[in-house]
Order: sequence, then structure tokens, then C-alpha cells
Amino acid sequence: MTDTTTPVTVLGLGLMGRALARAFRTAGHPTTVWNRTPAAAEELVAGGAQRADTVAEAVRAARVIVVCLTDYQAVYAVLEQADLSGTVVVNLTSGDSAQARAAARWVEQRGGRYLDGAIMAVPPVIGTADAVLLHSGARADFDTAEAALAALGTLTYLGADHGLAALYDSAGLAMMWSVLNAWLQGTAMLRTAGVDAGTFAPFAQQMAAGVATWLPGYAEQIDNGAYPAEVAALSTDAASMTHLIEECEALGVNAELPRLFRAMADRAIAAGRGGEQYPVLITEFAKP
Amino acid sequence: MTDTTTPVTVLGLGLMGRALARAFRTAGHPTTVWNRTPAAAEELVAGGAQRADTVAEAVRAARVIVVCLTDYQAVYAVLEQADLSGTVVVNLTSGDSAQARAAARWVEQRGGRYLDGAIMAVPPVIGTADAVLLHSGARADFDTAEAALAALGTLTYLGADHGLAALYDSAGLAMMWSVLNAWLQGTAMLRTAGVDAGTFAPFAQQMAAGVATWLPGYAEQIDNGAYPAEVAALSTDAASMTHLIEECEALGVNAELPRLFRAMADRAIAAGRGGEQYPVLITEFAKP
Ligand SMILES: NC(=O)c1ccc[n+]([C@@H]2O[C@H](COP(=O)([O-])OP(=O)(O)OC[C@H]3O[C@@H](n4cnc5c(N)ncnc54)[C@H](OP(=O)(O)O)[C@@H]3O)[C@@H](O)[C@H]2O)c1
Ligand SMILES: NC(=O)c1ccc[n+]([C@@H]2O[C@H](COP(=O)([O-])OP(=O)(O)OC[C@H]3O[C@@H](n4cnc5c(N)ncnc54)[C@H](OP(=O)(O)O)[C@@H]3O)[C@@H](O)[C@H]2O)c1
Repeated sequence: MTDTTTPVTVLGLGLMGRALARAFRTAGHPTTVWNRTPAAAEELVAGGAQRADTVAEAVRAARVIVVCLTDYQAVYAVLEQADLSGTVVVNLTSGDSAQARAAARWVEQRGGRYLDGAIMAVPPVIGTADAVLLHSGARADFDTAEAALAALGTLTYLGADHGLAALYDSAGLAMMWSVLNAWLQGTAMLRTAGVDAGTFAPFAQQMAAGVATWLPGYAEQIDNGAYPAEVAALSTDAASMTHLIEECEALGVNAELPRLFRAMADRAIAAGRGGEQYPVLITEFAKP
Repeated sequence: MTDTTTPVTVLGLGLMGRALARAFRTAGHPTTVWNRTPAAAEELVAGGAQRADTVAEAVRAARVIVVCLTDYQAVYAVLEQADLSGTVVVNLTSGDSAQARAAARWVEQRGGRYLDGAIMAVPPVIGTADAVLLHSGARADFDTAEAALAALGTLTYLGADHGLAALYDSAGLAMMWSVLNAWLQGTAMLRTAGVDAGTFAPFAQQMAAGVATWLPGYAEQIDNGAYPAEVAALSTDAASMTHLIEECEALGVNAELPRLFRAMADRAIAAGRGGEQYPVLITEFAKP
């Protein structure tokens, strides 16, 4: 938060856009709002936000323009209704890295600046430190928008490449589903022995958090391109994977996840990497 | 640790068995050791351990008999050479839950007691609190062995079913590989934008640990058998998975992991669960 206020415009008052506008108001920033269906603005206007009747009017009201719409098609449909020169468009609409990079070029061609963003939070969390927002684009544009954006949650600036926020967002989702699926896998296994999900969950939580602490060290191996088997060799891990698959089959639970683990490991072993450590699998993950 | 000492025997002095025997000695427990290839005992004998020339002699030297061999076949080959009556056999050899349950019956038929164990640590960590050992079997047998076993690391007693240690061990491995693979997936994605593994790793670590904190709450849904979409519906998650797959394909990195996530989600959606929350996928994981 800052002790000065920054005028900000919010285009798109869906579930998320309304939460964003509310947080800007709570932080005291003069907030102008616009939505295709005007009724969505009513509660916000009652809370002190300024309603704009057109996109053009909304964009004239502030330098920092926050956009939060269904998809990029909607973003273009809305932004083409305004003169973007002199603005910093902060696009918090979900999309992929190529879409973010293309939107940056499109906005710049219209005289505006573009900062991409990914919201790693649900609407009720917006406005608290638990709401993590990832941003990418020119540092100067992040600096311009930061005073307003800080009202939304914890900001992380990732770098100049506009595609980074979407990439980190996707990578974070991959991590999220992996942790959840592994936990479901373990829960399914333990339930065959009458252990309930609540008993297993703290163990799974500790395990996930514990393994996560290895990542910075393992990352050094990747960045150095050398994978000495300091703790275990990939071929030893692959043998344990086989036991895991057999255990799942014997228990009558799904075994697709461990089978995928082993298929990846087997390919790296076939490529002669069986004596190296787990992170050597990056060679397989990097291939289509 | 205790202030009294407990005589203990270690059968099997491979990489792990030697680490176990060393930790017992360090804690001051009278330690008898045996290995098929006797030379492995030398360093331990120099450190104060007692060498037994036969398995029978080794088993006579203590009530608590720790076994750490390549596999269960070796366990039977070794244990059938001794009279097990009055002993508590603590088997730390890796295996599956069915093998552990069968070994318990086999030892009990020979007049001994059986406690299973899984070592979630590498040999250099044995003897420190970071070495986690999981145990399952009768509580009384755990209590008998605990005074000695505490020298090895942090003990967790899981319950009377002898298969539990192996099941938790396997489930823990599934969690471990999931976190590592998801991190490799994200690393491969970020590297296409020139972000090195060391830059991404702290983000991945935080993400894994953060998602892990949801597990106890999600476990309640499973134990209650009701999956209200409080945060998001499975069908919304599935749509994000599709974007993740497309992003991986566009970047030219492996997309098998997100494809597996979506295949599982799609099956639950086809079964009519798309409006429920992620843990409803337990219905798919519980199927062969
Ligand atoms: N909700 C979350 O938990 C969450 C979390 C992280 C990220 N996000 C992202 O935030 C963005 C918005 O999500 P949301 O939950 O707010 O969605 P939402 O409630 O469905 O709102 C969608 C918004 O987009 C507008 N819109 C769609 N097409 C339009 C068009 N062609 N022209 C003008 N306006 C258009 C809608 O206007 P009308 O009111 O006129 O239909 C509405 O304001 C999405 O990209 C989403 O992925 C959401
Ligand atoms: N090392 C680890 O990081 C680790 C971690 C967790 C769990 N574990 C588990 O601990 C167990 C032992 O692992 P380790 O690393 O110590 O393996 P290791 O170094 O290969 O030692 C294997 C041991 O088993 C003995 N053995 C094998 N077959 C035998 C037979 N038929 N009769 C008598 N003795 C036999 C070997 O005796 P010889 O010396 O005569 O060959 C040796 O003492 C395995 O189940 C492993 O999965 C190991």
C-alpha cells in the first residue's frame, strides 16, 4: 500500500472484476468501472466507484487500466473501443503466453503500455496478502501500476517478457494438480487398508512440503547440466516405481500416474541416463 | 533416546544395515551384527559391535532383531536359519503391504513377533531426527522395540495392520515423484522463455507447500463423501487443464502429465461429477 492514491479503471465486472474494483476502493484509490452489462456496477457505485458509460470514457478517467474479462477475444473487443495512448493496460484476464505477448504488441501499436498479470487467487481472497498476483512486462510499467495494484494482494514482478506471468501461472497449476493427484493416489491406496483420508492428509502434506525443499538444490543440477547421483540413481528410482505400480495393481486402485512416472524414467534410462540423478529427466520433459 | 540401553541385533550389513548398526552403537545399545559376507562387519566390530558367526547366534544375542536385506526372499532365507521364539523381528527391508502381512504370519508361526518398518531416508541421515521411519504391527511390539529404534531417527507408529508402513511408504513415493515431475514440467516450460531452473524453483517450492496445506480440508470432503464446489468446480479445472496442455504443446514441451490430469478429470465429468470439487476424483483413483 502507499499513502498516496492512484486513479484506476476496471474494465469487466464479473466475479473477479468486482472483487478487484472493491479492493481498489477499500484502499482509497479513485476507481472508475465499466461493464458490458451495466447492472454489475451498481453495488460498486454505491461503494464510491465512478461508473463510466463507455469504454472510451472509462479509459480517459485513469492512466492505469485494469482489464479482467472472460478471454482475450473479449479483451480486444473492449479495448478497441478506446484511445489507449498514454495508458498502462494491466490485463488480468487468463490466457497463455503467446496471447499475452501478442496483446502487448497490439496495445503498444495503439500508443499504450501493456503489463500482463495472472491472479493466483479466488475473488474472496482479493485485497488480502494471500492473493498472489504475478506480473510481467517492462519494469517501468510495473512501477507505474504498482501503487494501485498493491491494493489487490501480494505482487510478484517476474520480468520483461510479457509471457512470463502466464507461464508461471500454468506451471503453478501443473504443480497444484500434481500435488492433489498424488494425494488422491495415496488416499486411494490407504483407504484399502481402512485408513481414512483425514489420517493420511497430514502425512501427505508433510511429504509434499519436504520434497519441495529439495527443488532449489536439484535446480542447480539442471542449470549446471550435470546430474551426479548424489542421493540415488534414476534406475534405482525406476525400480521403486515398478513396485509402486505393482502395489497399486494388487490393491485394485488406479495405476496410471505411477505408470506415467515409469514411462518417463524408462525413456531417460533407454537414452543412457539411468546412472544419473532424478533431475536428468528434464531432458524428457523438454521434448514434445 | 532412552537412558537405558537395549541389546539389538542387525541382520544384513549392506549400505543401510551398516548405517543402522552404527546408529545403535552411537546410542550405546549393545549391538550384535551378522552379514552373509562377513567382511562387511569389520568396521562395525572395530566400533564396538559384536560379530555373530551364524544367524542363529545373532538372534540369540538380543530380543529385538532388526533385518535389512535386499528383498523378502533374502529375509526368509536368513530368518529360517534361527529360532525366532521370544524375539521381535523388526523388518526394515523394502517391500509391499502383502509381503509385510505374509512375513508377519510367517514369523508368528515360528513363535516370534513381527514389526514392519519403512525407512524414508538415505543411509547418511540415519541416526538424525531427519531420518523418518514408519512402523506398523502390534502396538506392544512397537513399544518393545522403540527404545532401540529411537536411535535411528524419528519414529512414526501407524497402526496394527502390518501392511501400513509399506502402504504409507509407497504413497509417499507417489507424492515425491509427483512433486518432482510437476517441478520438471514447470521448469521445462519456463526454460523456453529463458528462465533458469534456479529462478523457478523457489516459486515451485512455495506452490507445492501452499497446495499441501489444503489437503486436510479436502480430506474432510472425502471422509464425508460430499464434494461441494466451494472454491471451484471440476469442470472449470478441466478447462484450465486444456489450456495447460495447449500451452505445453505450443511451447514444444512434454504434455503427458497434463493430459493424464485431464483424462482423469474427464472420466469423472463423464460420470456426472463435473459440478463437484476436485477431491471427487477419488472416485476415479479408487478404480483399477
Ligand atoms: N473467478 C476466479 O476465481 C478467477 C481466478 C483467477 C483468474 N480469473 C480470471 O479472471 C477473468 C474473469 O473471470 P471472472 O470469474 O470474473 O468471470 P465472469 O464472472 O464470467 O465475468 C466475465 C466478464 O467478462 C465480460 N465479458 C465477456 N465477454 C465480453 C465481451 N465480448 N465484451 C465485453 N465484456 C465481456 C463479462 O461481461 P458481462 O457481465 O456483460 O457478461 C464479465 O464482466 C477470467 O480470465 C478468469 O480466468 C478468475
Ligand atoms: N540404501 C538406501 O538408501 C535405502 C533407503 C531406504 C530403504 N532401503 C532398503 O533397505 C534394504 C537394504 O538396502 P541396502 O541399501 O542396504 O542394500 P545393499 O547395500 O545392496 O545390501 C543388501 C544386503 O542384503 C544382503 N543379502 C542379499 N541377499 C541375501 C541373501 N539371499 N542372504 C543373505 N543376505 C542377503 C546383502 O548381503 P551381502 O553383503 O552378503 O551381499 C547385504 O547385506 C533394501 O530393502 C532397501 O530397499 C535402502
